[in-house]
Amino acid sequence: MKLASLRNGRPDGHLVIVSSDLTRFVSAGRIASTLQSALDDWQRCAPILGAVAAQLDRREIAGMPFNPAEALAPLPRAYQWIDGSGYMVHLDRVRSLKGSRDQGLQDERPIMYQGGSDTLSGPQAPMLVPSDELAVDFEAEIAVVLSRVPMKATREEAAAAIRLVGVCNDVSLRRLVAADLEEGFGFFHSKPSTSFAPVFVTPEALGHCWRDNRLHLALRAHVNDSLYGQPNAGRDVRFDFVDLIVEASRTRELSTGTIIGSGTVANAHDDMLPLKRGGVGFGCIAEARVVEKLKIGKARTPFLKAGDRVRIDAVDADGRSVFGAIDQTVTVHKR
Amino acid sequence: MKLASLRNGRPDGHLVIVSSDLTRFVSAGRIASTLQSALDDWQRCAPILGAVAAQLDRREIAGMPFNPAEALAPLPRAYQWIDGSGYMVHLDRVRSLKGSRDQGLQDERPIMYQGGSDTLSGPQAPMLVPSDELAVDFEAEIAVVLSRVPMKATREEAAAAIRLVGVCNDVSLRRLVAADLEEGFGFFHSKPSTSFAPVFVTPEALGHCWRDNRLHLALRAHVNDSLYGQPNAGRDVRFDFVDLIVEASRTRELSTGTIIGSGTVANAHDDMLPLKRGGVGFGCIAEARVVEKLKIGKARTPFLKAGDRVRIDAVDADGRSVFGAIDQTVTVHKR
Repeated sequence: MKLASLRNGRPDGHLVIVSSDLTRFVSAGRIASTLQSALDDWQRCAPILGAVAAQLDRREIAGMPFNPAEALAPLPRAYQWIDGSGYMVHLDRVRSLKGSRDQGLQDERPIMYQGGSDTLSGPQAPMLVPSDELAVDFEAEIAVVLSRVPMKATREEAAAAIRLVGVCNDVSLRRLVAADLEEGFGFFHSKPSTSFAPVFVTPEALGHCWRDNRLHLALRAHVNDSLYGQPNAGRDVRFDFVDLIVEASRTRELSTGTIIGSGTVANAHDDMLPLKRGGVGFGCIAEARVVEKLKIGKARTPFLKAGDRVRIDAVDADGRSVFGAIDQTVTVHKR
Repeated sequence: MKLASLRNGRPDGHLVIVSSDLTRFVSAGRIASTLQSALDDWQRCAPILGAVAAQLDRREIAGMPFNPAEALAPLPRAYQWIDGSGYMVHLDRVRSLKGSRDQGLQDERPIMYQGGSDTLSGPQAPMLVPSDELAVDFEAEIAVVLSRVPMKATREEAAAAIRLVGVCNDVSLRRLVAADLEEGFGFFHSKPSTSFAPVFVTPEALGHCWRDNRLHLALRAHVNDSLYGQPNAGRDVRFDFVDLIVEASRTRELSTGTIIGSGTVANAHDDMLPLKRGGVGFGCIAEARVVEKLKIGKARTPFLKAGDRVRIDAVDADGRSVFGAIDQTVTVHKR
């Protein structure tokens, strides 16, 4: 099943069940008013939500037209947002950036940071930044939502905790990343609100696209009208979601509704921007710039400016959107 | 008024109003069932909660006996927990520890990290750690709970956002701090659940103890039967709560219910442990060890082991507890 939270004037929005083709929805209000409350009572809610989803797909329930512009993030505020680093290609590329720490790659254990989870942005919300002079970048990622995970979870416990899968944009202010790294206290200032595609999907509903604890789909990223990347999230995975969950629970339990991100999806290749037909490209701008610097001596792809539009969409083999698209315009916060 | 959340089998507990002397409580269920829901609707809830609190104090409502053993953290799970560094004396002392980064003190702007907010521990919950071989320490702090703060908040906006004040213990695994700092991704593994004293208190109810955006009370910390410290949280403040809030909102808004910690409360002095009568001492063990190393060539105060008991309590001039005590026993998580 696919779940979304629609705007209703309240911080958590209104939980709805969305049809598999993302065209129609029905309220889940009688079962659970918010996604967090459904997660808190998943054993009871999941079968009922699933039954309604099946009726919606069989058109036994007509539903209403689903408008992603009305969608908040599926969890508009969460108790935890952890971003991991599943794709070494991404870390490998960005670590050659000025200001990044010169250290051996973490091959043994994934690194991760505690992100702000109090405001997660909807798919069409403005990408709100304090200034567009801070090297604004997007990061196209896959995320999973968890049930409670005990401290020092086993791989089996970690795998069983994955309730939902989604797509997100971990917005980054690259100019502040170096300062945050230097302080050593984490990416406090360099990461504004992370945004999410309209729906979360159960692993079961993803069918063969969800296997080996990872999503086997291309994650397409456009900036304005240019395709910047379409790496496959199932390839070049150094740490899968179970690895990330096990590591995150090493010294503490994770509560119900915790979201863990994959890190920027990145495949190994020799592409540069603009992408040639069939190219793989990049899940963020920083990587494109690093490759340019290596190949032609200077970075030419600019970071994002006010008015730039970023679209991120996980698509199946037929090019159909599975989670709905993130479609945001960079907007500088005005006081 | 003073607010607590009592255990009721649900993750957020049951909101209650506690008498000023911490002896009696009355349910707030008819006004708001949880503290987060009260914060979300504060304009409506605060006056009603305050009126009931006044009736309880005047004994127009008898109430029930308040048992802090039944208390969860006042916000048992929060959308955000940020820990700041208001007391330079603490940073100054711990930075001389092995593994800490050798850098100039941050005199211009407070540093802060994003902490895990998904499980905040109650005052008498076990201090659950993955092992007691990790240099387990407590950190006695003051915390404030906020209403929504806009991005790039002014000092006036920051001051107006302070809804509630509390006391917390930012549990630290010192042996993992150095590795977390080295990675630069923040204190991910070195900070298990932070615990909180039984009640949050409105600034108004603190009277003259709350002024200049800080709490003017001694914060007493005992380990087993020894007094380790009683620094005054109103002294040696380099960055007050308004400074911390302004800094935290530099690149993002903070949502309703965000908790910001002061950092370990620390006063400048020449004490060593055991404390002499009237001594000030320390809000964490690491500071005591640093001073010992400087003065006698080696650290002798041990970090915490399983079974050790830590009590933290903010007391008024007459020695009366204002927030109730944190009273935890170190417990190693068993699988």
